[in-house]
Formats: sequence, structure tokens, C-alpha cells
Amino acid sequence: MEKVTVAVETPYDVLIDHDLLKHAAAHLEDLIQGKKVLIVTDENVASFGYLGNLQEAIVGITSGVDTYVLPAGEAQKSAENYVALQGHLATLNYSRSDVIIALGGGVIGDLVGFTAATYLRGIDYIQIPTTLLSAIDSSVGGKTAIDLPQGKNLVGAFYQPRRVLCDLDTFQTLGETIFEDGCAELIKYGMILDGDLLGQLMDRESPLNALSGDLGAIVKRCVEIKRDVVLEDEHDLGLRQMLNFGHTIGHAVEQASHYKVSHGRGVATGMILTQIMAEKEGLTELFLTERFNKLLNQYHLLNQLNLVKDYDFEDLTAAMTNDKKRRGGEITEIFPDSFGKCRLETMPFDQYAGYLAAIIADLKADKLPIVLDGDEVA
Amino acid sequence: MEKVTVAVETPYDVLIDHDLLKHAAAHLEDLIQGKKVLIVTDENVASFGYLGNLQEAIVGITSGVDTYVLPAGEAQKSAENYVALQGHLATLNYSRSDVIIALGGGVIGDLVGFTAATYLRGIDYIQIPTTLLSAIDSSVGGKTAIDLPQGKNLVGAFYQPRRVLCDLDTFQTLGETIFEDGCAELIKYGMILDGDLLGQLMDRESPLNALSGDLGAIVKRCVEIKRDVVLEDEHDLGLRQMLNFGHTIGHAVEQASHYKVSHGRGVATGMILTQIMAEKEGLTELFLTERFNKLLNQYHLLNQLNLVKDYDFEDLTAAMTNDKKRRGGEITEIFPDSFGKCRLETMPFDQYAGYLAAIIADLKADKLPIVLDGDEVA
Repeated sequence: MEKVTVAVETPYDVLIDHDLLKHAAAHLEDLIQGKKVLIVTDENVASFGYLGNLQEAIVGITSGVDTYVLPAGEAQKSAENYVALQGHLATLNYSRSDVIIALGGGVIGDLVGFTAATYLRGIDYIQIPTTLLSAIDSSVGGKTAIDLPQGKNLVGAFYQPRRVLCDLDTFQTLGETIFEDGCAELIKYGMILDGDLLGQLMDRESPLNALSGDLGAIVKRCVEIKRDVVLEDEHDLGLRQMLNFGHTIGHAVEQASHYKVSHGRGVATGMILTQIMAEKEGLTELFLTERFNKLLNQYHLLNQLNLVKDYDFEDLTAAMTNDKKRRGGEITEIFPDSFGKCRLETMPFDQYAGYLAAIIADLKADKLPIVLDGDEVA
Repeated sequence: MEKVTVAVETPYDVLIDHDLLKHAAAHLEDLIQGKKVLIVTDENVASFGYLGNLQEAIVGITSGVDTYVLPAGEAQKSAENYVALQGHLATLNYSRSDVIIALGGGVIGDLVGFTAATYLRGIDYIQIPTTLLSAIDSSVGGKTAIDLPQGKNLVGAFYQPRRVLCDLDTFQTLGETIFEDGCAELIKYGMILDGDLLGQLMDRESPLNALSGDLGAIVKRCVEIKRDVVLEDEHDLGLRQMLNFGHTIGHAVEQASHYKVSHGRGVATGMILTQIMAEKEGLTELFLTERFNKLLNQYHLLNQLNLVKDYDFEDLTAAMTNDKKRRGGEITEIFPDSFGKCRLETMPFDQYAGYLAAIIADLKADKLPIVLDGDEVA
């Protein structure tokens, strides 16, 4: 088993291994013994049997397990669901010493994390990410949030889980598309902070998949990178913004697509467009578009670029206006600096919008210096 | 001007004086200059002209002032209003560097504080309490919350304001009943932590009122007491529970009355019933009911006790079941220990409910060892 300890105010462990769900009682005993536990998940995850497996594994050591199953999808990260979940906890008389488990991807993790952060001003919660993406991204770092109709993640809190179980077996069952979304974030970690990881991903014989023997080690490396960034900047004031590489454009694309484009593919789109922008406008001396393009294509992460052609430019920038990274007429973007290293650069939003307009115009005219490859993504 | 500095992670000042609203620009310049500011208040406060005065005082140094006016009353501390206020901020494109001002009593302070704590995962907010109660209680300590249909303050966060302005002039205008509610909390501070303050309140020639020359000094003393308790126990794990003296029964009475009984009068009811319980059950050696009764009567804080006679006992204890102070079948109550000193005592909830049943039975049979005096409170 791989283990990463996150030394925040109340330190917690991220456990990475196969078969963790089956042995959840042993891994969670100190946190849930004799307590009421609410497992929140979605219909997809429940249909794979993970909810039943987890419930069966832990019910004996708790004072009772309740379950709460939502439909799948980003739309569930709503204020309505947040309020309903709070009401459910209150109706079941959950006290400050009881526990919530988030079993699912980033949507479940964010919604449940924010609920736990604010129910009775904070109760314990445990993350069990069932996707590669949520394992390496949203389950570490304590960012919890819900969406508003006006934009993603507009309401939330910084709140750390008490433990994270990354059961690698669960990453195998949600399908290749979902796994590839996680690879977008893997690649991001390499780009911003780890040239070795980036090189390893670019040079491997065959693309990483859920059965690859080195998956546990790679997940551990990403969790460590994220942990180190978060510890240095828990409240997202500096270094942590680096993790947003590709996210400014990525979030905008997700929102403009009404979330038909997934988070991972949104970020992949954002990363390649940011790279092209940086090369085109002289914002980097690292000419990486071609290799980067090839790497992203291996995981079929760029095919939704054709969708972006149909979006109004105003829709894209309107989404950015509400983005938290925009402060008082300026925007801070993350640009590639050298291999495995990015930098923050703040510029007037209008200047940035001009650069973006040029890239989008090239995209619409099929003049971007990239090739698309792989299946269409619905 | 009186000033109390609260040295939390980001220290802030509580300013106490007359005429603060009029000079708000000078007192808030460092926090709001060049920023967008949303003032949230209620119709009562707005009708006294405070909203207009504040807006006029600060608009010149901000980049724009927006206002948001709610109806008055506890019912406004709802999840619906919380979500609507978040949506309003997003629609107005408030960024992380903008500011919200809570202008009003505890309801506005709690709702706005929780909104500020969670909009974009936290933006600055300023408290301008317009009642004695909110000045000495909810505006210091960082407890923010909203209510659910299942109970009061069930959802919230610990989040500190950047500054608190207590304009004593505003305490004069909201009526004697509201001022007296604040006196219930003054008396509570004396009971739990300051025998001098308690003696001073018991021995004064005429009751404190909004025009009393020593009001500023008394407010300062209460803010200091609360500050000291909060600093020692920011996350409400021990000492801070002391501040809940009278609140277990108080909250239950408020809820059972559907909030016809105000917070201050609920707490006064809770304090006297807890004192009588302590004497009756041998939980204290401090026999203070008579003097305590007299003091509370001076501020007409006990007349709603007649209302409590009509409540079902089950309604009262049902409300307590959801109270955050109840943990795993036990309840921690605060009992008077000596003059100006209370202690925490944890006991099985059933035992506590038995004591409470005895007191309520006495109340219904008009056998409580107290006298009621003053006007009926609707």
C-alpha cells in the first residue's frame, strides 16, 4: 500500500491500494467506530456495487450506516442538493461527532466536503474517490464547493477530510473516458511541477491505463505534488494557483458546453490553448505544442475542441468574468516556463481576452498548429 | 472611542462609540477603498435611515455600493435567503477582493457572515451591529450560521469579520424591548465570568438604558470577555461552551414558540430555569434565584414564562435533540458555581430531561420560586 500523509492542522493520510473498499473497516476503524455514518454517492457508483460493498464492510463497527444516493453528473453540485443534504443530516439527528463519507468522483467529493464543512459548523468526513481524476485532484487540498447557475465552484469552503482511501480497483470500472479525464490532470502535474513525471508520460511505450502496474506509484506522486503545493499555500493565495494551469479556459469551455465537456477534457483544452497562446504571443520560450499535442491525443483528450468552434466568444469570456482568478480587472494565468515548470503571470483582463480571441479565431478557421486524433467525444 | 482588538489569525478591531456610522469612511478606509461593497440589512434598520447614512458615508471611497434589504426577523436566516444572496453576489460579479457589510442585528450578522465565509470560499466582511445584543454577542467570535426547518444555526462556519463598528446611537432607536434582549446577554456575561460586572448590574440605582453614560464601557467589558473566551477556544470545544449558559433551554423555548420569544428573552428564561434546576437538584451551592429574578425583572425579561406553560414538554425536548450541545446521548449544561462563575457538567440526556420535566411541572403549577413583573411580551 502507498501512503501519503498530509500534515495540515489535523493531519490525515491518503491510502492508495487495491481492495481498500473491502477492508474499509480496518482502514477507518479509528474514525467511525461506534458512530453514525452517512455514505453519500451517485447512481453510477452505486450501480457498480461499491456502495453495497462499503456499507457491508463497515456497518459492523458503526452505530448505523445511512445512505444517500444522487443522480450522477455535475448538475448535482447544486445549492438545492446542498440544502437538501443538510436537511437530511438534521432530520437523522447527526451530531458533531458523527461522520460523512463521500464515495464517488469530484462532484460527490465537492458537494459532500462542503456539506461536512458547514453542517453544525463542521463534522468529520472521509473521501473515497472512485475516479483517477478525483483521487489526484479534488480529494487532496481541502477545496470544497458547490456550483451556482452563475458559475462553477462559486460557493464553498477550505475543509480537509480526515482520511482519503484511493481504491485503484474502482478506477477500472467507470470506463476509459473517465479514466482519460484523470490523465489530463496527471499531465498537468507533470507540466507545472515535475519534468520527470512529464517525461515518463511522454516516453512510455503504451498509454497508462487502469491496469498499469505503476498506477499506484503515479497516483502517489501526484498526491505528493498536490500535497506539497497545498501545504505551502493552504488558502490559495499564491503557489496553489499554479494548479489552475489550463483551468481558466477549461472552466469556461465546460460552462459554455453546459457541462457536456468533462472537467478533464476541459482542462486538456485549456492546457493546449494556453500553450499555443504562450508560444504565439511570446509568453514562453518553451516550444512544446507538438509533443504536448501528441501526449494529449494518446488519451483522446482533444476531440471536443471541435465543439468549441461552435461557441460564441462572448459566452466563453462571460464565464471567465465570474472566475475567482479574476481580480479587479486583472487576470492571473499560468504559462509554461520550462519543461515541468510553469509560472504565474498577471495581466489586464482585456489583454488576455485579446490573446484568447486570436486563438479562438485560429481554432474556428482550423489554423491551430495541432492535430486531432481519436474518437469523437459526445 | 473604546477599542477592543481580537487577535485571531487575521486580527481585527471592535470599535465602540457614538456617531460611528457618520464617520464610517474614516473607520473603514483601509478595508473598502476602491472596492465594491454590498451592504446587507433589514427593512427595520433601513427605515431608521441607517442604510442611507452608511451608504452616503462610504460611497465616495468605494468603487460602488450595492444594497440588499431583507424583511426583519429570524425567519430570514434561511437557506433560501443564503442561496439567493450568494446568487446576487455572483450576478453582480463580486470578486474575492470585494467586501460585504452586515448592518443589523444578529440575524443579519449570522446570515451575512456565513455568506461571506463561503462566497468564493471566503471574502472580507464587516459587522455593524445595530442592537446591544448583536454588539456583545454575535458580532464577536466568528460564529456564523443559518437555520434549517429542523433547528436553529444547524449550518454555518467559523469566520471572523475584518472589523466591527458598534455605533451606540443605533442601540437607542430599535425600542426598549430589543435593548432589554441585549441586557439578558449582559447579565449572562456577569453570571458566567465576571462577578464585578454582575454586582455592578445588581447594585445600580436605575436599570441600564441606551442613554446610560457607562453603556460604552459595559459593551467594551462584554466584548473583552467574549474575546478572551473565543481566543482560548476558537472552535467551540471547551470554555466557549460556557457562553451557552441558558441557551439549551433558551433555544428550545425560542423554537417551541416559533420564534415569538426573542433570543434574549429565551436566554433569560433558560438562565433562570437552569438556576432553579441547579438549586433544586443540588447542582450548585450558590442560591441566587431571588436576586437573579429581581435583576431579570428589571429588564422585563421573564414575562414570556407564561407562554412556556402552554408548550408541550415533548416540543421542548425535541428541539434539544437537534441541539449541537447534545453528543451521543449526553448533554453538557452550564451550571452556576459561585458568584460570577459557572461550570460545565456533562450528564446523560435522560437525566437532564428528568430535571427539566420537574421544573416545567412546577412552572405549569405556578410553583416556581420566582415572581413575574412588568408588561406582557407578545
